[in-house]
Amino acid sequence: MVKLSLFGGLDGIGMNMMSFQHANEMIIIDAGIMFPDADLHGIDKIIPSFSYFEEHQKDIKGIFLTHGHEDHIGAIAHFIEKINVPIYGTKLTLGMVEHKLMEADIKKYKLVEVNEKSVVKFNHFRLEFVRVSHSIPDGVMTIIHSPAGLIVHSGDFKIDYTPVDGKVVDLKRIANIGNKGVLLFMSDSTNAVKKGHTQSEKHVGDAFEKEFAGVDGRLLVATFSSNIHRLQQAINVGKKFGRKICFVGKSMENTSAIARRLGYLDFDDEDIISMNDVDNYADEQILVLVTGSQGEPLAALTRMANDKHPFFSLKENDTVIMSALPIPGNEKMVYSNINKLGRKGVKVIYEAGSKMHVSGHAYAEELKLMLELVKPKFFIPIHGEYRHLLAHKELAEELGIVEKVYIPENGDQLEIDKKKISLVGRVENSLIYIDSNSNCFEDQGIIDDRQLMAANGVVSIVVFMDRDKRIIQNVALKMKGISNPPDDFMIGIKDSIVDQFNYRSGAGNIALENIEKEISDSVRKYMLKKIGKRPLVIPIIL
Amino acid sequence: MVKLSLFGGLDGIGMNMMSFQHANEMIIIDAGIMFPDADLHGIDKIIPSFSYFEEHQKDIKGIFLTHGHEDHIGAIAHFIEKINVPIYGTKLTLGMVEHKLMEADIKKYKLVEVNEKSVVKFNHFRLEFVRVSHSIPDGVMTIIHSPAGLIVHSGDFKIDYTPVDGKVVDLKRIANIGNKGVLLFMSDSTNAVKKGHTQSEKHVGDAFEKEFAGVDGRLLVATFSSNIHRLQQAINVGKKFGRKICFVGKSMENTSAIARRLGYLDFDDEDIISMNDVDNYADEQILVLVTGSQGEPLAALTRMANDKHPFFSLKENDTVIMSALPIPGNEKMVYSNINKLGRKGVKVIYEAGSKMHVSGHAYAEELKLMLELVKPKFFIPIHGEYRHLLAHKELAEELGIVEKVYIPENGDQLEIDKKKISLVGRVENSLIYIDSNSNCFEDQGIIDDRQLMAANGVVSIVVFMDRDKRIIQNVALKMKGISNPPDDFMIGIKDSIVDQFNYRSGAGNIALENIEKEISDSVRKYMLKKIGKRPLVIPIIL
Repeated sequence: MVKLSLFGGLDGIGMNMMSFQHANEMIIIDAGIMFPDADLHGIDKIIPSFSYFEEHQKDIKGIFLTHGHEDHIGAIAHFIEKINVPIYGTKLTLGMVEHKLMEADIKKYKLVEVNEKSVVKFNHFRLEFVRVSHSIPDGVMTIIHSPAGLIVHSGDFKIDYTPVDGKVVDLKRIANIGNKGVLLFMSDSTNAVKKGHTQSEKHVGDAFEKEFAGVDGRLLVATFSSNIHRLQQAINVGKKFGRKICFVGKSMENTSAIARRLGYLDFDDEDIISMNDVDNYADEQILVLVTGSQGEPLAALTRMANDKHPFFSLKENDTVIMSALPIPGNEKMVYSNINKLGRKGVKVIYEAGSKMHVSGHAYAEELKLMLELVKPKFFIPIHGEYRHLLAHKELAEELGIVEKVYIPENGDQLEIDKKKISLVGRVENSLIYIDSNSNCFEDQGIIDDRQLMAANGVVSIVVFMDRDKRIIQNVALKMKGISNPPDDFMIGIKDSIVDQFNYRSGAGNIALENIEKEISDSVRKYMLKKIGKRPLVIPIIL
Repeated sequence: MVKLSLFGGLDGIGMNMMSFQHANEMIIIDAGIMFPDADLHGIDKIIPSFSYFEEHQKDIKGIFLTHGHEDHIGAIAHFIEKINVPIYGTKLTLGMVEHKLMEADIKKYKLVEVNEKSVVKFNHFRLEFVRVSHSIPDGVMTIIHSPAGLIVHSGDFKIDYTPVDGKVVDLKRIANIGNKGVLLFMSDSTNAVKKGHTQSEKHVGDAFEKEFAGVDGRLLVATFSSNIHRLQQAINVGKKFGRKICFVGKSMENTSAIARRLGYLDFDDEDIISMNDVDNYADEQILVLVTGSQGEPLAALTRMANDKHPFFSLKENDTVIMSALPIPGNEKMVYSNINKLGRKGVKVIYEAGSKMHVSGHAYAEELKLMLELVKPKFFIPIHGEYRHLLAHKELAEELGIVEKVYIPENGDQLEIDKKKISLVGRVENSLIYIDSNSNCFEDQGIIDDRQLMAANGVVSIVVFMDRDKRIIQNVALKMKGISNPPDDFMIGIKDSIVDQFNYRSGAGNIALENIEKEISDSVRKYMLKKIGKRPLVIPIIL
């Protein structure tokens, strides 16, 4: 019997993390962050609580990373800071992890490199890895030989028959594993609602060829810095057209350096120029690879669009290729940049029929192929919103090869044995919010307060209270984020609150510990009556 | 010479409003709202300032509404409240306007119904109207005979050769107008980036036919209530499959009632049931037309998804058809609803290859057709973000028939005569924010405060000051929306601020009127040092 605990990744894209336990052994797959929705004001990223892992700290044998994307490795420094266990991953993944650990000033850690030939053995678990294609190189599918049976975790994948690095997914090996009898398959559902088959990454290279040919000014390509194969293709085509390459944006500079050092990105020193050198070349000799394809407020392209990049100014006749699609929720930011660039006279080539992007996640037909090869007894769709998991479930049922499909929720704990898969409980999986200054906190109240202030404003009220818990008439009051208070507002609110409070207090109805709440409630009630809004109230009692 | 003032609609979808002036005559086209971006916390809608119109009040001959969508008529009650001029529009448009005026408790107004045969004459302007297809019936193109020459305003349109009401755009009349020589054409750019031709609205009816046939439980169709032809098609197909129709959602109930009363929606009393009657029919006899296709937080479908609708509960085996695409920015809300519905066992049919929606705005080929027919001397693309206007400009230039294309910005004032079109100035066009309680305000500071509080929290600080402008040691302080203040925070902040302030104050460096600002600044500086954030500060001086 194996206990499977799911900490995230099942109600949206992000925070991928799960553990497998048997007796006193636990292995973990991934430790990702989730990017916040817009209503999580001031929050940069979200990680799962690690309290379950802290409880089982001595059992943890290692954390296995499927690939180097933030939603899979973004929480690794936070984790290792608390629980220092060996980190397993392929070369590029570990390269990116090491950079993260360095940035977090963590010096004590153990990295174990694995590849498609590795076997990692513990007492109860044995792990192997199969290379898969994705929008970052060096992603793996994880094969877990467990006491319950064979468990296969797809990682994030697509099936690219012509990958840029020539390393095609080893479908024969997956078929062989399938033939041995797989108990449980867990597979990437991101694109389960998309019909057909993704395009090969090579397709983007072909589009670059065609598009670069028609550009005579400076050329910028905005894409995810972790899409190393995309960068390689842009570099290759850029060189062909006599352009020098310039990396702009923090993650673009870092990731390209890591990838080059580890042999995943190939170019000569002479191909590359720094931002300072750009003006020393003719416009048609410049290719800038830049961050900001999602309109992120602090990314390089956004700064350029706002004329706020310290070292790079855009000009008329520059061309920007958006080699990415907006992730749902980012559309407004992306289009805002495109509009600003357009107003500068910069030509922007973006989606709408352009072929400058392909997805890194398998579409329906690829998912079916993988299910068919793995042929599991039990199937758990992972990595997606509920609608994606559901669509993936329907694909599996359509094939008719799976005995049971289970759609999990974040926090589910399941038991798996040869005969059955069943929900046995819930793990503590509260969210840890991390703000732009790397403060971590768990208190949902802070988020609620921020949302309340944002929507309804804030009232700060100072009251003087005597020893009999009676408010002395003189009250000070200030508001922010509140529109159109009526003229008699300040007088009214004081009278209304003071009188009401003293009446109730005199009748002995207000316990000392409730005074603040009482005052808040009456201010909010009064405000609702007067301006139709219930603001956040900050009562200060003197 | 005609003066054209553009108040909105040119930097995003919404707030469409413009005026044409000659001598002492002014006519206005549309008075729309804009829906706010997510960072405009607590704001429901935005309208342009009417101060320019107030200045020219006596010249205004009337306001001409092209169709009944919120981004074209949403500000009409706010306008008429201030400036009571005749409102011209087609029957359905005026029906919707009248409802708005009634809701705003405006009793004094003048509505003038026009149709494709009407001619409205003033001293200097003469107006005619051509019916166009759109996602609401009764939309018009406006033909303005002006002292400078013929001006054509497309309104929002598509070219539907098989419209549900059988009233095809009168292309021959448009061609005739074009043959007379059009000086200026202004045309809907919403879908200028989309290649090809929109599908006919009939297409959705066909999809309903196919999809309704396969549903055996209760069926809900979520769409815009103003898409009367969509409602008519759903009703027709629903009836064919023996379903009774139930309208759910405030705007769905209102709009369907208006449209039926005015003859735009056709059904019998016996076809319709109320929410209370739903349980008296078998599941397969129910068709609910519901609001919430954009995931709007207060709309009926969203309430249902959250189990918060007072009169309607969803259950397993219900089917919801999303007959709309998410407007950019609404994706997260829409998908959140779809996920919640899915978890209830409700089957949701949405985009991704389904044919349950077509756009109401012309694609590139339709725009080219219209440009070709109108053949204007000058062309101004309107109704879109910059990227849409730019794409529309490029289409016009591709045709090579237009002498000059001008891409305007909100607030531009142009002069047009037979020879030229030129920017002559800017009109006051500040934004008026309207919150959920219909409070209007113009103060950007309130928005800024809300954004600051949302991202960084708020500190309320009370200081006692003596007559010498020195802070007496005892300070009270409270925070909200701020995470992890360090332990010595309260002491530190008091000491730091008081000491610093008194030092500077003692040296005579602080003017009385700057005291609050000084205190705010030092709190913010201190907080930045301690927690890396600059919160909003509310200083209260006693």
